Amino acid sequence: MTARTGTTIRFDRGPQIVAGAALVGKKEGDGPLGAAFDAIEPDATFGEPTWEQAESTLLRRTIGHAIKKAGRTPAEIDVLFSGDLQNQCAASSFAVREFSVPFCGLFGACSTMALSLTLAAIGLDSGAFRTAVAATVSHFCTAERQFRHPLEYGGQRTPTAQWTVTGAGAAVLQRYDERAALPQIAAVRPGTIRDLGVTDAANMGAAMAPAAKDAVAGFLRDTGAAPSDFDLILTGDLGQVGSDLLRELLLREDGVDLGTVHNDCGLMIFDREAQDVHAGGSGCGCSASVLCAHILPRLMRGALNTVLFVATGALLSANSALQGQSIPGIAHAVLLTAPHGKETP
Amino acid sequence: MTARTGTTIRFDRGPQIVAGAALVGKKEGDGPLGAAFDAIEPDATFGEPTWEQAESTLLRRTIGHAIKKAGRTPAEIDVLFSGDLQNQCAASSFAVREFSVPFCGLFGACSTMALSLTLAAIGLDSGAFRTAVAATVSHFCTAERQFRHPLEYGGQRTPTAQWTVTGAGAAVLQRYDERAALPQIAAVRPGTIRDLGVTDAANMGAAMAPAAKDAVAGFLRDTGAAPSDFDLILTGDLGQVGSDLLRELLLREDGVDLGTVHNDCGLMIFDREAQDVHAGGSGCGCSASVLCAHILPRLMRGALNTVLFVATGALLSANSALQGQSIPGIAHAVLLTAPHGKETP
Repeated sequence: MTARTGTTIRFDRGPQIVAGAALVGKKEGDGPLGAAFDAIEPDATFGEPTWEQAESTLLRRTIGHAIKKAGRTPAEIDVLFSGDLQNQCAASSFAVREFSVPFCGLFGACSTMALSLTLAAIGLDSGAFRTAVAATVSHFCTAERQFRHPLEYGGQRTPTAQWTVTGAGAAVLQRYDERAALPQIAAVRPGTIRDLGVTDAANMGAAMAPAAKDAVAGFLRDTGAAPSDFDLILTGDLGQVGSDLLRELLLREDGVDLGTVHNDCGLMIFDREAQDVHAGGSGCGCSASVLCAHILPRLMRGALNTVLFVATGALLSANSALQGQSIPGIAHAVLLTAPHGKETP
Repeated sequence: MTARTGTTIRFDRGPQIVAGAALVGKKEGDGPLGAAFDAIEPDATFGEPTWEQAESTLLRRTIGHAIKKAGRTPAEIDVLFSGDLQNQCAASSFAVREFSVPFCGLFGACSTMALSLTLAAIGLDSGAFRTAVAATVSHFCTAERQFRHPLEYGGQRTPTAQWTVTGAGAAVLQRYDERAALPQIAAVRPGTIRDLGVTDAANMGAAMAPAAKDAVAGFLRDTGAAPSDFDLILTGDLGQVGSDLLRELLLREDGVDLGTVHNDCGLMIFDREAQDVHAGGSGCGCSASVLCAHILPRLMRGALNTVLFVATGALLSANSALQGQSIPGIAHAVLLTAPHGKETP
């Protein structure tokens, strides 16, 4: 059963997250969250002849690991939701091919983890599926050459630029089962595209901040909650520029002060100074790996009770940028609660 | 309420299709279904400076027209599902941007119309949404230069090649309302990727046929139905090569004879001989425009009662093809029934 207020969908018996897994590359493993990841792969090729196949292999391994951690086999998964940044979401298609599981391909750019969780939760809640996997991946080397420059070019990065995470996250979800003490998806809010005319593809944070602002303000409005009702409002890869803008927009336009309750996956995964990542991390795998490796375990053991996960995406293509188009931003919000946690706001 | 058998999801009170719209280009308008489309645009640029923007404008107009035909405004639409063939599904993002409607981006290549209907139906059935738009688009000129050659190149096309449709389809759906006499989505079956190793990007029909075979055979198995229980089993852009292969695979591997109940959107939209399209039409907009312009009206007036719509997608990218990868195929099945039609099989 679901109830709809504004554009927020609340579940009476929210689908549960059975397990999450996150695999990352060496640079991510060297960051502040290094110890949290399920595995750190020092070889950026993941043993494959192309970067694109490396990204697929990273995702395939992550999904496989998540299913194993959930104590399931692929045959017990009813549906798999995934997408990525590669043209035609090829990383996902080639990864998922190996599992023989019904597949719904998504495109949400860096918002994909929240989109996959949203659609998985709706499908589980409806009874259409009993189990689902929500996943996504990004790889620095495929993103860099597809959206920016050949890796060998060695161009200067602007201060607003973010560093695409080589990493993947996958979560195994199930229909609500009252006997299981597991984190739940208590609510979801599919995002609406916002485009304020930012055309600088090296400043994704600014392009995505208005959508993130809408997602947070909208969720608070729809549910009557205040920031203090959450242990954490976690945006997915706004970086420093976008995070500052989000706080400013919320305060100025909605009178909402995020206080100390906000953090951003793009700021958590790297040490910005020591790791030379400029405005922070980005890529579908950024929020996905931070969520699955760092946040889900804390929800599972009750160290966090109520987390509003707001993954943000910049829906541009290399073509649209070259053709002078502005960057449409989107942000999907997912409310995660601990087992037997506080009442949802 | 939904019931799940195998991987088929059946709805007790299937979401209803309020209206559909399809806009196409000149070549499609000159074809056998020309009179069915809502509009035929003689200018392939749709008044835009780039092909990519032309494709977006085509989709935006189609969605707007469908919402208008449904007697709604964009503000009354709870969610919009769309995807396309452009890198990063840019045609959809830039089209949807104008509507300020919550947006779930999809990637299913040419299977997108069935994927968008599937996820819209699940979300409506669950109560998450009251209304939804399911849509997709393709444009010959963007697809040709992205996947094949510059338009100016003028290369020979192989006999197995298909012609990407310039067209879009959009359907407005609502939660089941017993007072409304409207076609319903009675069941959906999300597809599983099949890849038998076809590497010829000029032979999509062969790459997609095994997935189509699985979708049809699986749906029949899950529901205990026979081909004769349907007025039409409509595949989405297998073309002649893929359609022949589908019939052969079904007969040989499953003992299923499609008889005269099968047709393919790629064979219906063009006159293959007169219009020089080789194996037939293709592209997301092929099955979407045939469904919305030709099939939905016949379902609405009861000329068709039970249609199994199986849109097929080839999940390759230009990169994956150049890197020698085979082509993953997928096919999602959607059972459409007329208002007060026959019982679903």
